[in-house]
Amino acid sequence: MKNRIIKFNGVYVSGVSSVVGKHEAEGPMGDKFDFCDVSDTFGSPTWEKAESAMQKKAFEILLEKCNLRAEDVGAMFAGDLQNQCVGSSYGLLEFPIPYIGLYGACSTAAEGMMLAAMTVSAGYFDLSAAVTSSHYLAAERQYRSPTEYGAQRSPTAQWTVTGAGAFAIGRTGVVKITEACPGIVMDKGINDASNMGAAMAPAAASTLLAYFDESGLMPSDFDGIFTGDLGFEGGSILCELLSSKGLDIRAVYNDCGVMIYDRIKQDKHAGGSGCGCSATVFAADIWKRLQCGVLKNVLLIGTGAMMSPSSIQQGLNIPAVAHLVRFEYGGNDGYCA
Amino acid sequence: MKNRIIKFNGVYVSGVSSVVGKHEAEGPMGDKFDFCDVSDTFGSPTWEKAESAMQKKAFEILLEKCNLRAEDVGAMFAGDLQNQCVGSSYGLLEFPIPYIGLYGACSTAAEGMMLAAMTVSAGYFDLSAAVTSSHYLAAERQYRSPTEYGAQRSPTAQWTVTGAGAFAIGRTGVVKITEACPGIVMDKGINDASNMGAAMAPAAASTLLAYFDESGLMPSDFDGIFTGDLGFEGGSILCELLSSKGLDIRAVYNDCGVMIYDRIKQDKHAGGSGCGCSATVFAADIWKRLQCGVLKNVLLIGTGAMMSPSSIQQGLNIPAVAHLVRFEYGGNDGYCA
Repeated sequence: MKNRIIKFNGVYVSGVSSVVGKHEAEGPMGDKFDFCDVSDTFGSPTWEKAESAMQKKAFEILLEKCNLRAEDVGAMFAGDLQNQCVGSSYGLLEFPIPYIGLYGACSTAAEGMMLAAMTVSAGYFDLSAAVTSSHYLAAERQYRSPTEYGAQRSPTAQWTVTGAGAFAIGRTGVVKITEACPGIVMDKGINDASNMGAAMAPAAASTLLAYFDESGLMPSDFDGIFTGDLGFEGGSILCELLSSKGLDIRAVYNDCGVMIYDRIKQDKHAGGSGCGCSATVFAADIWKRLQCGVLKNVLLIGTGAMMSPSSIQQGLNIPAVAHLVRFEYGGNDGYCA
Repeated sequence: MKNRIIKFNGVYVSGVSSVVGKHEAEGPMGDKFDFCDVSDTFGSPTWEKAESAMQKKAFEILLEKCNLRAEDVGAMFAGDLQNQCVGSSYGLLEFPIPYIGLYGACSTAAEGMMLAAMTVSAGYFDLSAAVTSSHYLAAERQYRSPTEYGAQRSPTAQWTVTGAGAFAIGRTGVVKITEACPGIVMDKGINDASNMGAAMAPAAASTLLAYFDESGLMPSDFDGIFTGDLGFEGGSILCELLSSKGLDIRAVYNDCGVMIYDRIKQDKHAGGSGCGCSATVFAADIWKRLQCGVLKNVLLIGTGAMMSPSSIQQGLNIPAVAHLVRFEYGGNDGYCA
């Protein structure tokens, strides 16, 4: 199918914020996040409430960094991994801003930026926000088992990032959002909930193939192609899938789940995952490199595994989706730094 | 805050479909739905899979009624009440259409139509779809307890509709989507999960007040103002809240949860609810009355209770959101029937 690519005009990631927990602060990007709570509690009595507190903190920091008032924000697009997305609905409750709830699993950061960019490019709002989060301890007891049980993790399992990211999508800035390509949900027969990377890689491949086919561009036209989050397992499957179709992205490819933890020192098995993974890595690292021109042309492919614990227990495979967003440094309308 | 209202140009609800279960077919709109399965199973071995099958059926009927191929649809906006919105991700899996996942609880039909209209009005796509569903038996065992336990229902409890609705939002038709007003999440202190109407009524009031304030219009400018779904309890609270602010909507007001069941013969207590309620009532009744000009100017306010069973167990209140969409008959661009 053609006409998958959406083009935006005069839309920027005007500002970003990132808030993380202990393991993320101890990783290779530890000094790049805006705020960290090594207790992972964020002052809250439950992990679920901690996630909401973290998302609230991320949004507060975004408003402060961008010198924005809540009433400047036309709408916020938000979602998370908790059942009924309560991390977001409670976390952002005190901001008097129209709230548009999303469910995209780990693709939520990319999905939210894509939709926020749609609203700004079309002139519906001058500024929209995208916000998302995940919390390791809330996710473990919802998806698998409480960590107190001490269940052994599979080598292909990813570690849910404790982190929240918030993005101001507006009309000014240096990092342009120029295109997006929403993904089609795919099921390639993977039903191992400890191998999300394998389930999501075909969705990422499908979206990238559609994008390169329609745009006529090549991987070499980009200086960064980032998935979020396939981890080590899914990332290598993606590269193989694309190679078999004649596309080699390896020279510019990385994955947010690979980048966020130190593989040797931290041993998170297949890497990081969760809505907060690509959100915090994009905010703390990729956006900053775009902002100063170290990166000039980047694709972020947010990947989400769209199953539930019940659907896996009922014997279903893991459907996955991947939304692509293109970011460019400066652009040609006078906003270049 | 001003500038809440989003205006659309040349966008129509080109087609609709509705699929329901036994109780809905036995209600006052029974003969208006496109398809009914009185077994509520839709050929599936579990209630969760039945919900997916129902959503698939609704989308198939939509494509057939509108004479569309899957590749004509730029994107579909979908979500439901199941954890991780698996009703939608599995239900729509076999359609090769970009999938944008939403979580808006019972506001999902309005949220999806609002976002789909944004993409068409801005020219991103010629046609987008919105799809949503709920299933009584899947919802009961997820939110409350399996119905086999025979728990007694509270008089203020609403009955989750078994139904799915699908909407083609395009450039041709009779029923125009002219405006939308996304809602702000509110918490007014209600924590009784058997009284969602009371929790959601303030959100509906807030969005309606913002809309009337900004638009300068009055309830008498409309021949239908429909909430989806406050039920009897929430609907009367909404009317009182608005009366106290000097707005009387009662002459043109109704609620999809009130309309879908017969209060005497079926006794669903406070009425219907669930993503499928406003979706099927809008598709089967409101849209048809707009389509033939019996209604000419309608507001649909989708209301969602954004809590989870866990958040209620942890002592939190029920946050709610209400998204408003305005529909007009015919319009002024030559498409009038």
